[in-house]
Amino acid sequence: MAQESKPIRFGIMGCAEIARKVSRAITMSPNSTVYAIASRSVEKAKQFASKNGYSDTGVMIYGSYSELLDDPLVDAVYMPLPTSLHLEWAILAAEKKKHLLLEKPTALNVTELHRILEACRSNGVQFMDGSMWYHHPRTAKIKEMLSDSKLFGQVKSIYSSSSYNGGQGFLENNVRVKPDLDSLGALGDAGWYCIGAILWAMNNKLPTTVTALPSLVRNSDGVILSCIASMHWEKEQLVATFFCSFLAHETMDLSIYGSNGSLHLEDLIIPYEETSASFQYTSGAKFAELHIGWNVKPTEVRVDNSGLPQEARMVQEFAKLIQGIIYSGWLPDQKWAEVSRMTQLVLDAVMRSINHGFEPVHM
Amino acid sequence: MAQESKPIRFGIMGCAEIARKVSRAITMSPNSTVYAIASRSVEKAKQFASKNGYSDTGVMIYGSYSELLDDPLVDAVYMPLPTSLHLEWAILAAEKKKHLLLEKPTALNVTELHRILEACRSNGVQFMDGSMWYHHPRTAKIKEMLSDSKLFGQVKSIYSSSSYNGGQGFLENNVRVKPDLDSLGALGDAGWYCIGAILWAMNNKLPTTVTALPSLVRNSDGVILSCIASMHWEKEQLVATFFCSFLAHETMDLSIYGSNGSLHLEDLIIPYEETSASFQYTSGAKFAELHIGWNVKPTEVRVDNSGLPQEARMVQEFAKLIQGIIYSGWLPDQKWAEVSRMTQLVLDAVMRSINHGFEPVHM
Repeated sequence: MAQESKPIRFGIMGCAEIARKVSRAITMSPNSTVYAIASRSVEKAKQFASKNGYSDTGVMIYGSYSELLDDPLVDAVYMPLPTSLHLEWAILAAEKKKHLLLEKPTALNVTELHRILEACRSNGVQFMDGSMWYHHPRTAKIKEMLSDSKLFGQVKSIYSSSSYNGGQGFLENNVRVKPDLDSLGALGDAGWYCIGAILWAMNNKLPTTVTALPSLVRNSDGVILSCIASMHWEKEQLVATFFCSFLAHETMDLSIYGSNGSLHLEDLIIPYEETSASFQYTSGAKFAELHIGWNVKPTEVRVDNSGLPQEARMVQEFAKLIQGIIYSGWLPDQKWAEVSRMTQLVLDAVMRSINHGFEPVHM
Repeated sequence: MAQESKPIRFGIMGCAEIARKVSRAITMSPNSTVYAIASRSVEKAKQFASKNGYSDTGVMIYGSYSELLDDPLVDAVYMPLPTSLHLEWAILAAEKKKHLLLEKPTALNVTELHRILEACRSNGVQFMDGSMWYHHPRTAKIKEMLSDSKLFGQVKSIYSSSSYNGGQGFLENNVRVKPDLDSLGALGDAGWYCIGAILWAMNNKLPTTVTALPSLVRNSDGVILSCIASMHWEKEQLVATFFCSFLAHETMDLSIYGSNGSLHLEDLIIPYEETSASFQYTSGAKFAELHIGWNVKPTEVRVDNSGLPQEARMVQEFAKLIQGIIYSGWLPDQKWAEVSRMTQLVLDAVMRSINHGFEPVHM
């Protein structure tokens, strides 16, 4: 009889704002638990624990990331550190045999990510990045309807946006606009989602060329604040475009245009509400007689999500893969590493296009 | 006392499918009437009259466009001819002192359009193109909310799509894919709306550069079936992108992203229904606490249009300007000519970018 699976013990490495959401998700997920919290100081870690209800739960508190990684009872780490610190700490975590849930963007470039993934592979640990929307049941429903060759047909174009306006304080002080911490700026933080969503819609087929458009806005340190780029699939005669920005109002659009259907949603990354989410789907729309209307209107497809929020589903999936490794001898699943790798590859190509005067970059 | 204004007498020059909708609009508009119908044969004109309820209304039937233009009682013509015929017939109409409601795309290129507009100017006739959506009350409402510098802020990006899948019959036989009739294809027919909508959102400021993206699909005669392009405003650090296609499902998207608000609609050109139309407006959206939702959701702003459909409002506006010329000594209004001219200028730039290997074209 197989050994009974115990909940995966997570160490939270870094007390960023997003760690609040993910630690809650780890607690909500039935197969995981928050076991340890580390920050650069014990005070910060204690403060995080206290603010998020972990003071009386016996959670270990560490004043350095190394101590957390040295704790043999930590199965997996969630790492929301600034991107420039990923390479060092992600590799160290893998070497310490900790399974790795790494915040996006996964690295400053694909070379770094390859080193991280190689460390995970050679140490037999599971890798996943922190993109939550893949795990929402709406995402599966969209893919199902998108894949209906009769109702939707062939994909002809895709558009995505991801933006938020952090305001002056954000633009002056946030980690995401600091060249030494997150030099990819809005492209890494917000564009990551657009690239991921477009690749996802294309069943993870890489584009043939990637081109940044000349609307780049950088801050005085050169960090990208706003950016538009296009991804071209030559054989499919298809271009996808996306807009990512720290200067525009909150948007999370995904529009997919097929030969016989189209779909739209505007809350891809974080649904408007936790317990259900929807998208607009239209198939076979034509002009009505005399072209004074449409023969069909979009249908709102609503997907229940009252069970677990998407981030808890992400943690559950990650922990399930780890349990498989620990208790059933599974090999680490490579699917999520590959999704991250392709996203980072396209992100690199956008950066190269920007650095070469917005020339197309062949993949 | 001013002479009492009589309804403007329209001649329909060409019995295209769209003429059914516009002749209905001329009949609905309180200041205009369908006076004459011309086709290349009397039979075709009669058939159109019969099919659209003009058999017993005393409408004049002409078997050639020239005869219609020679009728001194025709005040204005509506011209839905194939684009390649616009230059000849639009100029002739102006020379015959007929006010000109010209279908879009207005011409094959801006040089042709300049000649048409010059003919209108020198003959003192009013010009307007047949883009109906400008005249819907929703459009005015969108502009009002878009112009709210507090609720919406500055425009940061714009996206538009216009597509429909005509199917095999359309792709083989329709006027819009014939190189000798409508060589601009989907760019002229569908892209016209996207360019117009983007310019409209930018208060008719021309972009600094225009770039076609390398996803062009042409038919075997070289006519554009699908195209994506971008428009860049350098000073505003803003790029708009649009997708137009005869190969994708019916879409008419307009998304405008401001610094503090965003708006979306998906039935710009032809609203889902005639009597009212809506758009989604969001202002000041932020992540909710813990980033598990939004603090505000989009508001559906619905605009009543039970009075007149947008095409009848277009005709009413056009006829009002003509009545002003006839009865009050107004000069022809240049606003609509300028809207058409700028749209055609950008369309020309997209064509030039395509013809120069997708290089940016400076305006």
